[in-house]
Amino acid sequence: MEADSKKWRWQGTNRQQQALNTAEAAITVRGVGNSLRGNLDPEDERPVISLIHGNSSDFPRFRTSSAAEDAIIDALKSAKYNHYTPTVGLLPSRSAVADYLNKDLPYKLSPENVYLTAGCGQAIEVAFTVLAQPGNNILLPRPGFPHYEVIAGREGLEVRHFDLLSEQDWEVDLEAVEALADNNTVAMVIINPGSPCGNVYSYNQLKKVAEMARKHGIIVIADEAFAYMTFGVTPFVPMGVFGALVPVITLGSISKRWMVPGWRMGWLVTNDPTGLLQDSGIVEAIREYLSTSTDPSSFTQAAIPQILENTKEEFFSNILNILRDAADVCYGEIQDIPCITCPKKPECALFMMVKLNVSVLEDINDDMDFCLKLAREESILVLPGVAVGMKNWLRITFGIEPATLEVSFGRIKAFCQRHAKKQ
Amino acid sequence: MEADSKKWRWQGTNRQQQALNTAEAAITVRGVGNSLRGNLDPEDERPVISLIHGNSSDFPRFRTSSAAEDAIIDALKSAKYNHYTPTVGLLPSRSAVADYLNKDLPYKLSPENVYLTAGCGQAIEVAFTVLAQPGNNILLPRPGFPHYEVIAGREGLEVRHFDLLSEQDWEVDLEAVEALADNNTVAMVIINPGSPCGNVYSYNQLKKVAEMARKHGIIVIADEAFAYMTFGVTPFVPMGVFGALVPVITLGSISKRWMVPGWRMGWLVTNDPTGLLQDSGIVEAIREYLSTSTDPSSFTQAAIPQILENTKEEFFSNILNILRDAADVCYGEIQDIPCITCPKKPECALFMMVKLNVSVLEDINDDMDFCLKLAREESILVLPGVAVGMKNWLRITFGIEPATLEVSFGRIKAFCQRHAKKQ
Repeated sequence: MEADSKKWRWQGTNRQQQALNTAEAAITVRGVGNSLRGNLDPEDERPVISLIHGNSSDFPRFRTSSAAEDAIIDALKSAKYNHYTPTVGLLPSRSAVADYLNKDLPYKLSPENVYLTAGCGQAIEVAFTVLAQPGNNILLPRPGFPHYEVIAGREGLEVRHFDLLSEQDWEVDLEAVEALADNNTVAMVIINPGSPCGNVYSYNQLKKVAEMARKHGIIVIADEAFAYMTFGVTPFVPMGVFGALVPVITLGSISKRWMVPGWRMGWLVTNDPTGLLQDSGIVEAIREYLSTSTDPSSFTQAAIPQILENTKEEFFSNILNILRDAADVCYGEIQDIPCITCPKKPECALFMMVKLNVSVLEDINDDMDFCLKLAREESILVLPGVAVGMKNWLRITFGIEPATLEVSFGRIKAFCQRHAKKQ
Repeated sequence: MEADSKKWRWQGTNRQQQALNTAEAAITVRGVGNSLRGNLDPEDERPVISLIHGNSSDFPRFRTSSAAEDAIIDALKSAKYNHYTPTVGLLPSRSAVADYLNKDLPYKLSPENVYLTAGCGQAIEVAFTVLAQPGNNILLPRPGFPHYEVIAGREGLEVRHFDLLSEQDWEVDLEAVEALADNNTVAMVIINPGSPCGNVYSYNQLKKVAEMARKHGIIVIADEAFAYMTFGVTPFVPMGVFGALVPVITLGSISKRWMVPGWRMGWLVTNDPTGLLQDSGIVEAIREYLSTSTDPSSFTQAAIPQILENTKEEFFSNILNILRDAADVCYGEIQDIPCITCPKKPECALFMMVKLNVSVLEDINDDMDFCLKLAREESILVLPGVAVGMKNWLRITFGIEPATLEVSFGRIKAFCQRHAKKQ
């Protein structure tokens, strides 16, 4: 239909696509996932197994704690939390998050340091929006979490990547940080416990990062979505420990540790004992941004104190035991498959990075080709590393039922044998 | 503290403030509310009464339906909805919203026309983001809902205001729309049932709006946050009825009708029977934007089919009866106060606009001065019209307990008498 006096002229503005077109990689996890699913063989009657997802909550063994469910129901039934919440979050809940984090900090956060967000995803949005100014750049880890690149593109923050060193326990390449940082660098992102590499940074490694950030006068954005989800020898140390050395913005949530990513409940925390974030206007900008953006659901916010206080240690240790076993299974199975190697057994979270050696395979060009054919022939979905910036690597989720994991590796092994170069 | 090699140079980016500085009014509802609260007399022992809020859920008589609470608890306890949801929303819930809206449409929406959002607020964000391109402008009603101005400013959409005509039942000034629209106009916003004026547009009025929009080739964004919350003679007609004439993007939520604004559960609907929104890339842009923005909580989404189906008519009629009584009380009391007049008794929603005649008052300069002194002397908070674009008007919320409303008007009357010019 045509308008009476003129044509309909408007068209949709696709900010993400604009951003991605100018970004390093136009490949997104979601896009790749769709391609892989599109390549599945509908005639294969075996169940499709996804080793792509970052969410284990669908498996019965990973059901969230009853304390968390009860807390939501109590808040809801009280009928005290149907109203709009303060845009920075309900005060008792901010206070509970501060207490939760203070256990491991050498200074005390106040409730005013805590801003409740709709998951860690919104916390990333807030942080990047308040730091974006024309010409500014931000340093991101490679491999990392591609959502950062998308939000940076949308907000006009230039992205520069530093590598995580696969042969050195995925340490930060500090020389690269040194070379990349300039007068327009505002922040660097550290994901610890590590995703997707499954590494946990030691106190000393984090201290070196803090010192490097201090040297260049940049903020550390600490993505601690997987905080306390460690099951190896290295304990989790919050980046906020170094808040007196360098301003740290910590991003966290209940999504991973409580296995409830759909609840969309997270936080952004300013570790700012020296007042730099306050004095520079960052704190005011955070408050302003939140004053017109969406909030986490009111009764979920209200449930936070009970969730943080009442969840039993047993719930956490049970989840960690399952994940440790799953990581062991994965790591063991990989030893038996010549074309893939894992440089380090995961100590945390849900993912591991695995190196693919295409030279020992006959008709596989690269990681994307490997994953497309694996989907087609074995109904297994694995993320090609290129989607997280690492060509010829694979990202494998081990956060599924261990029995299913063994079935998966049976199929992967058969696939690799079938495609191996003849000796 | 100083960095080792250079000063800390970053500072917070305040997008809203940047936007507001260039916008027509730098006055926000929130900012004015803070000023009024700051002007309260701490020695006044009477309870402070707010007639500013847009949220009645705190009053026991406005408690949400048990059907809505039960639906949330059922979804939560099923443990089937702890995962990330599809970024466009859970399909059965999109389908339920389509069914809910289809009752009053001459064509059928499909679930694919429905996008679940974190309240109506996020729906506004989505709509404005996908329409914002350099040079584009949008037509907004005055008085209106100031969140539109803020989001337009943030997204770089030029705002042009058309008046709602106080002497003609708050009809749209179509001549103004005619004069304002040009080749860069992408859309106009209609808030119906009306907020803050309390008017309900008739079928014929809406048809004229649709024809005007069609003539100029612009989309109608229909803010139906208060859908079905009418208690006068004019029934609610959804703008989507005219979808074949002009593309309509409808914004809605459960916030107002179910009295749960904190739950953050809304929707954006493309009324697009002719496929124009699809063909122009608007639909694709909406999907892309949602793919990286935050989602409503999973189990609240999952509760939508039960909430929409199981809420009893009695719940709605009870709320509407309270609001009708409250509007009657307000309108009656205003007749007795010479300095304020209400051009039309509200027929919907929670707000009414009241004209202030400062010429009969002795020491009151304008609406802002009136409200500041009223807060100081009577502990009553009323929004000066200037915050919604109407100097020397007042916006009064009647969505409170009727008994409290009578107390409020007692104090307002005393205040006006005290400040009246001596005859």
